[in-house]
Amino acid sequence: MKKISLMGATGSIGMQTLDIIREHPDKFQLVAMSAGRNIEDTRKIINEFRPKLVSVQSEEDAIKIKSENTSSMIVLFGEEGLVEVACQHDADIIVNAVLGSVGLYPTLQAIEAGKDIAIANKETLVIAGHLVMKAAREKGVSILPVDSEHSAIFQCLQGESEKNIEKLIITASGGSFRDRTREDLLGVTVEEALNHPNWSMGAKITIDSATMMNKGLEVLEAHWLFDIPFDKINVLLHRESIIHSMVEFHDSSVMAQLGTPDMRVPIQYALTFPDRFPRKQMSKLNLADIGTLHFEKMDYERFRCLAFAFESGKIGGSMPTVLNAANEAAVDLFLKGKITFLEIEDIIEKSISKHNTIKNPSLDTIRQLDHETRSSIYSL
Amino acid sequence: MKKISLMGATGSIGMQTLDIIREHPDKFQLVAMSAGRNIEDTRKIINEFRPKLVSVQSEEDAIKIKSENTSSMIVLFGEEGLVEVACQHDADIIVNAVLGSVGLYPTLQAIEAGKDIAIANKETLVIAGHLVMKAAREKGVSILPVDSEHSAIFQCLQGESEKNIEKLIITASGGSFRDRTREDLLGVTVEEALNHPNWSMGAKITIDSATMMNKGLEVLEAHWLFDIPFDKINVLLHRESIIHSMVEFHDSSVMAQLGTPDMRVPIQYALTFPDRFPRKQMSKLNLADIGTLHFEKMDYERFRCLAFAFESGKIGGSMPTVLNAANEAAVDLFLKGKITFLEIEDIIEKSISKHNTIKNPSLDTIRQLDHETRSSIYSL
Repeated sequence: MKKISLMGATGSIGMQTLDIIREHPDKFQLVAMSAGRNIEDTRKIINEFRPKLVSVQSEEDAIKIKSENTSSMIVLFGEEGLVEVACQHDADIIVNAVLGSVGLYPTLQAIEAGKDIAIANKETLVIAGHLVMKAAREKGVSILPVDSEHSAIFQCLQGESEKNIEKLIITASGGSFRDRTREDLLGVTVEEALNHPNWSMGAKITIDSATMMNKGLEVLEAHWLFDIPFDKINVLLHRESIIHSMVEFHDSSVMAQLGTPDMRVPIQYALTFPDRFPRKQMSKLNLADIGTLHFEKMDYERFRCLAFAFESGKIGGSMPTVLNAANEAAVDLFLKGKITFLEIEDIIEKSISKHNTIKNPSLDTIRQLDHETRSSIYSL
Repeated sequence: MKKISLMGATGSIGMQTLDIIREHPDKFQLVAMSAGRNIEDTRKIINEFRPKLVSVQSEEDAIKIKSENTSSMIVLFGEEGLVEVACQHDADIIVNAVLGSVGLYPTLQAIEAGKDIAIANKETLVIAGHLVMKAAREKGVSILPVDSEHSAIFQCLQGESEKNIEKLIITASGGSFRDRTREDLLGVTVEEALNHPNWSMGAKITIDSATMMNKGLEVLEAHWLFDIPFDKINVLLHRESIIHSMVEFHDSSVMAQLGTPDMRVPIQYALTFPDRFPRKQMSKLNLADIGTLHFEKMDYERFRCLAFAFESGKIGGSMPTVLNAANEAAVDLFLKGKITFLEIEDIIEKSISKHNTIKNPSLDTIRQLDHETRSSIYSL
């Protein structure tokens, strides 16, 4: 029985993690969970899985939840509560599925507590990969990818030696606007941007897919997860999202992981690694039915956010923190209807071009920069 | 330094094995070789690689070769010579790249001598997989695949547990006649059949590709190499031969190995396993340039030989020996212009339909049946 502590239970990855736990009640147990403001779903999860520890965003909601449950259930709130969920003493693995940079500090605390981490919160590695991977190495903790692309690469690397890697090939569907030119993007609505062709995901990540920043964050994440320089990371447009990513080795052999687009496969793999559990109810890949797979060169002028991410990664230090904070703030403003789609790119470009990189930033520096970058964008 | 004994040095796989040895003179050494009647190429190989032991088909050629070389080089001939090459005492690995069922007895002798075997001679496993794999298990010897499809599956299985395999998916280019109907095949010539769209191979295997018997033999080989029942082996038409084969696991994740069609990649992998050596001069896979990959359901009525192979495999015992011998004789008659292309299928069908299967046949039974099946076809 593997005991799971789930950060971000009511989000898209959180809910699908619960699907896995539900399908294997003899293998997995939910011992702790955190949620934000979605109290409706938090109640449902508590009723079904009876975790020992629950944390929500506000004190008010925590008091409500506490009053509705038995006294043995611990209910906390805020960042302190999130850290408790991340460090829950009898959890075997933490699933970090929170959104945005709020996942960073609890992740570092979980590593300190010696917990293996299945990481879906890519911002944590994007902004503090140097701190997270160093701490994980020192504590002998595994950082297991949950993103379909990183899970694919991780699966391709099983039984292989990292010294033999020639390059990582991360596939990109192209997002909601892959068939539009930059001119076509001038007047796009939030609704259009949220209509992803292949994957069902949260709003922030769906917009990130449309701007290709999601792929940029994945490039940064892959750099840290697999300890690979940026010039050995390629992005390939593959509109069907069937090949989830690939690894080319120096003997010119390429390994790939394929499947129907369903996040439960990589989530489950992170939880069962190095084993695999059966998933009978899954839709199986049938390539004869699909017929054709398409591949195109990535256009970095069309998808400028991806170029920004590579640039920020190569500069390193504090630059990815600014890239990420600017992106989070800009996407938020777009979703609220306050800026246009293409202004997301402009805001990010301005933020990174005016930032003077700090080498090897501490957690405090990262948090401060993250805050400053957002503030300066919101106050525009 | 890995010492290599190469059976079938002048054939297509043999020559490409020599390319690998030539490219890595610090890693590989050719210590023994066998050839058939191609004395011209045998001389060139001897001059370049200076093996200690050489075996050719006829005594006459052996005497010639012996007289041309230093007295320290041992020159043998016939099956006895082939067995000596297979068992060469200081070889670390045997590459079995001979054509047809002649490879079986030396392979069993090599296993008995405790030699790891890189096997390109699929007939050995097709007709005597039960004997070969049992002997290999008992002697703790590795049987390493060289065929691109089996190498792909083998690579996909690294770091994986065989209990988690849902199915093997062997890809098939479709061969020279993939776009022709059965009616179109009535008058095809030997020359047309030898024009394979993707791979440069020997004549026998190119005809086997056109009839799809090659894929059938691969299915039988995969059954033995990976200990997988026939109902878990699928064949998928994939005309580009870029995905060399795949493994679907029971969590619905599919692993695939890809590359440009070049046999030197799987040959080298068998020689370097579990490591990989760099191949700088290789043409790298560029999926953006290729653009599209196509997949189609296999048509077992169009490609009857593949259906015969599955049937023979499921029946088991001596049936695959008859299938293989009938195919070798029929392809030989076709290449000599004595029968038409579609008569290859008819001959195989007649041979297997009249055979009464012997369970768990011994080596003697297999050799006798092999001989009888050929004789009855040649005497038609």
